[in-house]
Amino acid sequence: MALAIAESERVRGTTSPNPPVGCVVLDENGEAVGFGGTQPVGGPHAEVMALKEAGTKAQGGTAVVTLEPCAHYGRTPPCAEALVEAGIKHVIHAVSDPNPRASGGADLLERAGITVESGLLAQEVSRGPLRAWLHYARTGRPHVTWKYAASLDGRIAAQDGTSRWISSEVSREEVHALRAKLDAIVVGTNTVRLDDPALTARDAAGMPLARQPLPVVVGMSDLPVGAKLQHTALHLRTHEPDVVLGALAEQGVVDVLLEGGPTLAGAFWRAGRVDRVLAYVAPALLGAGPAAVLDAGVSTITDAVRLTVEEFTMSGPDLRISAVPQT
Amino acid sequence: MALAIAESERVRGTTSPNPPVGCVVLDENGEAVGFGGTQPVGGPHAEVMALKEAGTKAQGGTAVVTLEPCAHYGRTPPCAEALVEAGIKHVIHAVSDPNPRASGGADLLERAGITVESGLLAQEVSRGPLRAWLHYARTGRPHVTWKYAASLDGRIAAQDGTSRWISSEVSREEVHALRAKLDAIVVGTNTVRLDDPALTARDAAGMPLARQPLPVVVGMSDLPVGAKLQHTALHLRTHEPDVVLGALAEQGVVDVLLEGGPTLAGAFWRAGRVDRVLAYVAPALLGAGPAAVLDAGVSTITDAVRLTVEEFTMSGPDLRISAVPQT
Repeated sequence: MALAIAESERVRGTTSPNPPVGCVVLDENGEAVGFGGTQPVGGPHAEVMALKEAGTKAQGGTAVVTLEPCAHYGRTPPCAEALVEAGIKHVIHAVSDPNPRASGGADLLERAGITVESGLLAQEVSRGPLRAWLHYARTGRPHVTWKYAASLDGRIAAQDGTSRWISSEVSREEVHALRAKLDAIVVGTNTVRLDDPALTARDAAGMPLARQPLPVVVGMSDLPVGAKLQHTALHLRTHEPDVVLGALAEQGVVDVLLEGGPTLAGAFWRAGRVDRVLAYVAPALLGAGPAAVLDAGVSTITDAVRLTVEEFTMSGPDLRISAVPQT
Repeated sequence: MALAIAESERVRGTTSPNPPVGCVVLDENGEAVGFGGTQPVGGPHAEVMALKEAGTKAQGGTAVVTLEPCAHYGRTPPCAEALVEAGIKHVIHAVSDPNPRASGGADLLERAGITVESGLLAQEVSRGPLRAWLHYARTGRPHVTWKYAASLDGRIAAQDGTSRWISSEVSREEVHALRAKLDAIVVGTNTVRLDDPALTARDAAGMPLARQPLPVVVGMSDLPVGAKLQHTALHLRTHEPDVVLGALAEQGVVDVLLEGGPTLAGAFWRAGRVDRVLAYVAPALLGAGPAAVLDAGVSTITDAVRLTVEEFTMSGPDLRISAVPQT
């Protein structure tokens, strides 16, 4: 399954609105003979890719796959049938398909005499490569990761507005690598005005990575003439997070990185539309300057938005905190 | 040495202005036969306590001690001489004594034919039980730990001023245990006005712990009539951190916990008088409310007060970060 997760990570960011699935086919002796990840929309799914590589060695073998194989005819024939036809005898998947249209794969396999086991490394998959897609499959809304970089005292810029760079080079590279695995990056018109970001995913040398997310600007104001995003970004003239997410879902966007300033972050929090917080906290103090979020709809301590920390690690000298809202 | 450190932790908070030293005496076969920690001022030092317990078994043995044995006549005779007289053959200490009056212990021991080894678990000791005292011995100033509890977005209270409780019960208990190991707790008159704290060290049931730090209030205003601290606290009518620290040093205070609000914290940062930050960050968002520090003397990002993270762990659901200013 760890190899299947690695396959899924390789295609993450290229499959939406389909899930980035990974699959490894083992022959009847348990040797890995085929590897595959879901191809871009319209292309083969992970199972088919792995079966293709395995060829006749799949006969009597096992398919290890991060998501329950699909049972429906979409743009491609169902993967469950492909597994049956290839002579697979065992299927192990991490998470079941919550999508009512595609689910039923396990049933179809079992009816064909294949043993099916589920739940292996389910948490790694559901918090990792399939997190956004599972959220999208359950709610119909793209998954929103709110990312920010702040000082230990919670400032995202100094008193004079300067913010380059609060976080370390290591953290910034990590964010660029993350951008390349997401479908869209959302900022507000304020951020465009203040920072003039390009919202591209770049490597350490500043060169664009192969995969680029859709840059999205939210807000009523026109973008400043000459702004880097003026001709590249999707500009949504609204302040409503649900309108933003609806428009993005229509574009096939499943996984959104919210990188906007405190006002936009506040709007998403008030609407309950942040699914994960990714905070880079630099070990530095500023003592003045804006906070990461303004007006989250909280006026007294008992109404605080409570989170659960999923991960707490160092990123170079910085602290990296991944947390999800408590439900 | 781990046992010696444990001995020093047992007496931490009771020895100032002397260092909380721990000592274990091993007999000639390497068996631990005496344990000791420095007694309150005027009482015996750790080595003497451990030698007393060891009795004649110390003959030909080894003394393991967290600090280089002292060589001077202060309120008590030098420990180095006591070790020689007891027939100790080997001394292992973690850190050397930076105090010019007391140092020379290793020399005295070596001249008496005792082998001396230093540096064992030196970092554990110098960042742990002897941190404050080593700072005090080097600078003449008490060591200041600035402690605060904030939300992930850096607020120490909600918009309406409520702050009970941002951090978890686990974190609050940890702070009470820490208070009992320190000499003084400092807040500003603002904090007295807003929170009316008692600044006592209490257990989980709210009962006072055996050892209580000196409560100190800093600021020009009178304390409100009926404030819990009105008759218990040392009230220093100044805004100058160095005046505060000078007055506390005169009281024999070595280890200070700064628990004041953002204004007082800012004054200590501007004066360069915070030696360690201990932040409890609750996984919660407030979106409004005061920050932990105001006016740290930073106006632009390149002037940020940069810290080095020494430790970061979970404290119940909270993040606990210990950091020191970069020099």
